[in-house]
Amino acid sequence: MRLIDGKAVAAQIRKEIAEEVTSIKKAGGKIPHLAAVLVGHDGGSETYMASKVRTCEEVGFKSSLIRYEDDVTEEELLACVDRLNNDSDVDGFIVQLPLPKHISEQKIIEAIDYRKDVDGFHPINVGRMSIGLPCFVSATPAGILELFKRYEIETKGKHCVVLGRSNIVGKPVASLMMQKAYPGDCTVTVCHSRSQNLKEMCQSADIIIAALGVPEFLKADMVKEGAVVIDVGTTRVPSALTKSGFKLAGDVKFDEVSPKCSYITPVPGGVGPMTIVSLMRNTLLAGKKEIYK
Amino acid sequence: MRLIDGKAVAAQIRKEIAEEVTSIKKAGGKIPHLAAVLVGHDGGSETYMASKVRTCEEVGFKSSLIRYEDDVTEEELLACVDRLNNDSDVDGFIVQLPLPKHISEQKIIEAIDYRKDVDGFHPINVGRMSIGLPCFVSATPAGILELFKRYEIETKGKHCVVLGRSNIVGKPVASLMMQKAYPGDCTVTVCHSRSQNLKEMCQSADIIIAALGVPEFLKADMVKEGAVVIDVGTTRVPSALTKSGFKLAGDVKFDEVSPKCSYITPVPGGVGPMTIVSLMRNTLLAGKKEIYK
Repeated sequence: MRLIDGKAVAAQIRKEIAEEVTSIKKAGGKIPHLAAVLVGHDGGSETYMASKVRTCEEVGFKSSLIRYEDDVTEEELLACVDRLNNDSDVDGFIVQLPLPKHISEQKIIEAIDYRKDVDGFHPINVGRMSIGLPCFVSATPAGILELFKRYEIETKGKHCVVLGRSNIVGKPVASLMMQKAYPGDCTVTVCHSRSQNLKEMCQSADIIIAALGVPEFLKADMVKEGAVVIDVGTTRVPSALTKSGFKLAGDVKFDEVSPKCSYITPVPGGVGPMTIVSLMRNTLLAGKKEIYK
Repeated sequence: MRLIDGKAVAAQIRKEIAEEVTSIKKAGGKIPHLAAVLVGHDGGSETYMASKVRTCEEVGFKSSLIRYEDDVTEEELLACVDRLNNDSDVDGFIVQLPLPKHISEQKIIEAIDYRKDVDGFHPINVGRMSIGLPCFVSATPAGILELFKRYEIETKGKHCVVLGRSNIVGKPVASLMMQKAYPGDCTVTVCHSRSQNLKEMCQSADIIIAALGVPEFLKADMVKEGAVVIDVGTTRVPSALTKSGFKLAGDVKFDEVSPKCSYITPVPGGVGPMTIVSLMRNTLLAGKKEIYK
């Protein structure tokens, strides 16, 4: 069994991005600029956002944080999106989700200029990804594919079972894994809460990508010898052992599943750290106008 | 075994659409108008186009056919798309594929206003379909889903194996069959030319949607008792028995597979006739501005 060290890979990618930013600076080019919009004071969102800003600093990006209180109107937020769309200094920007209930997340996402949509949530980017065209791929699926690449894991012709059909992980990662590309070229099965024979499906999988959000859902008897297991679960569960009073739980019962695996990601330290670097990668691509002119 | 009669279902849908057009006329509303652009004189394209125009007449739509010779430039074609985008009388339009090699099909598709993209090929419509938002669903996948609906075939929790990962059939039908909806809510597996264990995968399927374009690919020993088989294959093969010198061959070895099935579509007369009525349905929705304002 080999542990996939997302933390180390992410650190390596941050270093690579930082080097590229240094070269851009030396050549007198424009420093990539990521803007982020944060509404309210949700604990999780605050943590993610602080981490994104910190990573921008580490790789040498310019970053801007625009804050609104929970009572911001949809109109005000759309006006903000419009300003960022038209701000030529901003290469890419994100609106941190979730948003308060009186605001339509979909409306906000669709208002973002897809050429600045570094979260990859705009329908144009989702559609282009499905068709196999250059686009901004959302951070978590992109991070997972990068792990396959860095560990040189064979995917062609393999059976990849994706657990979960969310718009931000399950569906896009399934779409990517079936493309005629590396990583990809898999036979892909998408399972979800309604699936019959989910256990048998997992047992036949060469690769399992678990993104259900159900702590310790995947047990040893559901995994075949030598499988690759990618755990995308990050459910907060109470813990007496941490200062914060909670810990992150993956979708995989790690202790019993890991001995059977050829490769496995831990939680934390697997897919999680890859997410933010994937956002950074998208911002770099946006800054260099590599995907859209 | 029950034969799915796509021809009869399509006739019924044409009748329903015609009735709705009659009501619109009576109420003094605008008659839906489908425009089609045809480049060159490819035999298959001519046949499809004639059939589309004829169906428009049958259901009471207004239709326009714009023809170009093979030597039309990309610029001229883009100008035509632009005119149709801005023609307020045209509710929806299609550019018949394939196009000559000197023209980028993708560029033409992306130039079409997605609100008039009744073929559902624009990345915005593809993306919105994946996310589960209202959109124009491309004709063949939409036609397949309509057959499930009309025959009241249970899909929830079933294992649906899609053979083929094309952008116009395999990927979109897989995307639809995994949505939390009816028809849908399936465990979906996408197989293709690189798949290992394709046979075993088919054997475990409750529903098989064959869209490989390989005549008689699916044999009896690949299908379990009681499966639902949808044959999307339409390969032209030589035939001494027809006037034209060829016949349409499906992806399914019908004679040996059909006795094992609970439901099966024939070729011709299965999915084929549904494709044009799905385009008509999209045009009706476009005319009524039901999806986009």
